[in-house]
Amino acid sequence: MKSIQVMTKDGAYDVNVDSELRFRLHELLPKSYRKVFVITDSTVGPLYLDDVLTELRKVSEVDYSIVPAGEGSKSSRFYFNLMTEIINAGLDRDSLIVALGGGMIGDLAGFVASTYMRGIDFIQMPTTILAHDSSVGGKVAINHPEGKNLIGSFYQPKAVLYDVDTLHTLPLREIRSGYAEIVKHSLIHPTPFWDQLKSLNLNQPLDNERLVSDLINGIHVKREIVQQDEFEQNVRQYLNFGHTLGHAIEAERGYGHITHGEAVAIGMLFALRVSEQHFNIQLPFDELYRWFKQNNYPFDVSDLSVTRLITRMKKDKKAKNSAIQMVLLKQLGECTSVRLEDNDVTLWLETFMRELVNN
Amino acid sequence: MKSIQVMTKDGAYDVNVDSELRFRLHELLPKSYRKVFVITDSTVGPLYLDDVLTELRKVSEVDYSIVPAGEGSKSSRFYFNLMTEIINAGLDRDSLIVALGGGMIGDLAGFVASTYMRGIDFIQMPTTILAHDSSVGGKVAINHPEGKNLIGSFYQPKAVLYDVDTLHTLPLREIRSGYAEIVKHSLIHPTPFWDQLKSLNLNQPLDNERLVSDLINGIHVKREIVQQDEFEQNVRQYLNFGHTLGHAIEAERGYGHITHGEAVAIGMLFALRVSEQHFNIQLPFDELYRWFKQNNYPFDVSDLSVTRLITRMKKDKKAKNSAIQMVLLKQLGECTSVRLEDNDVTLWLETFMRELVNN
Repeated sequence: MKSIQVMTKDGAYDVNVDSELRFRLHELLPKSYRKVFVITDSTVGPLYLDDVLTELRKVSEVDYSIVPAGEGSKSSRFYFNLMTEIINAGLDRDSLIVALGGGMIGDLAGFVASTYMRGIDFIQMPTTILAHDSSVGGKVAINHPEGKNLIGSFYQPKAVLYDVDTLHTLPLREIRSGYAEIVKHSLIHPTPFWDQLKSLNLNQPLDNERLVSDLINGIHVKREIVQQDEFEQNVRQYLNFGHTLGHAIEAERGYGHITHGEAVAIGMLFALRVSEQHFNIQLPFDELYRWFKQNNYPFDVSDLSVTRLITRMKKDKKAKNSAIQMVLLKQLGECTSVRLEDNDVTLWLETFMRELVNN
Repeated sequence: MKSIQVMTKDGAYDVNVDSELRFRLHELLPKSYRKVFVITDSTVGPLYLDDVLTELRKVSEVDYSIVPAGEGSKSSRFYFNLMTEIINAGLDRDSLIVALGGGMIGDLAGFVASTYMRGIDFIQMPTTILAHDSSVGGKVAINHPEGKNLIGSFYQPKAVLYDVDTLHTLPLREIRSGYAEIVKHSLIHPTPFWDQLKSLNLNQPLDNERLVSDLINGIHVKREIVQQDEFEQNVRQYLNFGHTLGHAIEAERGYGHITHGEAVAIGMLFALRVSEQHFNIQLPFDELYRWFKQNNYPFDVSDLSVTRLITRMKKDKKAKNSAIQMVLLKQLGECTSVRLEDNDVTLWLETFMRELVNN
C-alpha cells in the first residue's frame, strides 16, 4: 500500500492508494465509529456499495444513501435531503460519513459532513482517476443555478482510501478525463514527471501498479501545493493551469458533452502555446499534442466561437475590456499567474484553434 | 469604547462595545471592501438599517436584504434565497457580509458567509443583549425541521461591533432574556461578577455605561471559555449551565411563547438546586430567585409535565433509562459536567417545580 500524508491546519490525514482497499476498510478507519453513513451514486452503488457496507458492518452501525449519478445531484435539493436522511439515521457528532464515488460524491458528501452539526468526520473513497485531484485538498461544495461550487467550505477528510480496483470499471472517456489532471500535475511542479507518462497508452487496459504510481505522483504534487496554500490565497491558483480555457469550453459545450479532463487537455495545450509566446520559450507542446491525439482526446473545437470563449474567460464577465488571468509556465515545472489583454488572448486563441482543427 | 480581543485558530478579532458605533462603522472595518452586503430583519431594519447603509456607502458599494423577524427565517429557504441575492449583487471572495440584528440574524448571515465561495468575511453587529452570547464564539447555523442549529459551521467573524444604543428599543422581555445569559456568565467563571448584578433593576431604563460594563463582563467570560475550547470538545459545554432544563421548557412551551433567557433563568435555578443537593453545598439560590422575581421573570411552570421535560432532557430520547447530562456548580464560579440518573432528576424536578409555583 502506498501512502501520502497531507498536513493541514486541522491536523494530518493519510491518502492510501492500493488494490482491494475496500476489503480492508475497517482496519483503515482513523478511529472507531458507532454510526457510519455511506453516500454514493447510482453508477458506483451497484458496483461497490455492498463490499463497503459488508466491511463497515463488522465494526459499526451502517446506513447509506444513493443519489443519481451526475452533476445534477450536487444541488441544494439533494444536500437537504441528505441532511434529513442522516438526522433520521441518528448520526451525531461522533459519527462518520463515507463518500464513495467520484468528485461529485466527494464534494456533496463532504459539504454535508462539513455542515452537519457544525462538522463531523468524513472519509473519501474515490472511484475515479479524476478524483485523485478533488479528494485531496479539502474543497467541498454544491452548485447554485448561477454557478458551480458557489456554496461550499474548506473541510478536510480524515482519510482518503483509494481502491484502484474500482478504476477498472471506468469508461474510457473517464480514464482520459482523469489522466488529463495527472498530466497537469506532471507539468506544473518543480519535480515534473511528464517523462514517465509519455509512453502510456490509455487505449490498453491499465495495470494496478501503473495506476498506483501515476496517482501517487499526481497526489504528491497536489499535496505540495495545497499544503503551501490551504485556503487558495496564492500558489493554489497554479492548479488552474489549463482551466481558464478548459472551463470556458466545458461551459460552452454544456456540461456532460465534454468531460472535464478533455476540456482541460485543450486548455493545457493553449496555456503551453501562450506560455511559449509570452515568454518566448520552447515547451513540449508537440509532445503533449501527440500524446493527447494518440489517446483519442477529442479536439473538435471548430464549432466553438472565440468571442464567446473569451467572454467566459474574463474575470469580470460584464466588463468590456477586462483582463484575463491565466496560469502560464515559465519553464516546465514553474508556474506563474499572468494578466493578459483580451485582445492578445483573442488573437492567440484564433490561431490555436485553427491549428488544432487543421492538424 | 470598550474592546475585547478574541483569539481563534484563524486569527484574532475585536469585540467593540460602545454607543453610536453605527456612526463610526467605516473606521472600524478591519479592512476596506469593494462590496458589502448587510443582512437584517424586519424588526431591526426599519430602526437602524439606514444609519448603517449611509455609513458603509462612504467607503463601499452596498446592498442589503431584510428577512422576516423570528426564528422561521433561520431556514434552508431563506439561506438559499440569500445566496441567490448575494450572487446577483456580485459579491466575491473579497466582499463583506454584515449581520445587523439579534442571534437569529447572526446565525443565518454567518452561515451564509461561511459557505459562500467557501467562506467570505463577515461582521456581527448585535442589536440584542442576548446576542452578546451568540455573536462571540463562531457558532453559525440554520435550523432543520428536525431540530435547531443542525446545519451550521464554526466560523469566526472579522469583528463584532456592538452599538448599545440599539438596545434601548428592545422590549422588556428581550432585556430579561438577554440578562439571563449575562447572569449565567456571572456565575460560571472563576471571576464571578454576580455581586455586581444583584442590585440591577431591569424595570427601569438602563444607562449605556451600565450596559457596556455588563456586556463586557459577559463577553469576557464567554471569550475565556471559547478560547480554551473553540470546537466544543470540553469546557465549552459549561456554557450550557441552566440550558438542560431551559431547552426542555422552551421546546415544551413552544418557541416564541417563552423567551430563551426566561427559560434558562428557570433552568439555572434548577441547576443551582441540583448542585446544592448533589454536592451538599450552599449556593446563592435564594438571592438569584429573588432577583429573577423582582425583575418579573415568569415562573408559571405548573402546566408543564415533569415526565415530558425529563424525556426532553435525556441525551438519547429513545432510551428508557438513559442518563441526563447537566452542568453543575461545585462552588460559585466552578463548573463541572455530571451524569445523573433520570430517576434522581425526576424527584428533584418535582420538588423544584412545586417550590417555584408555591413561592
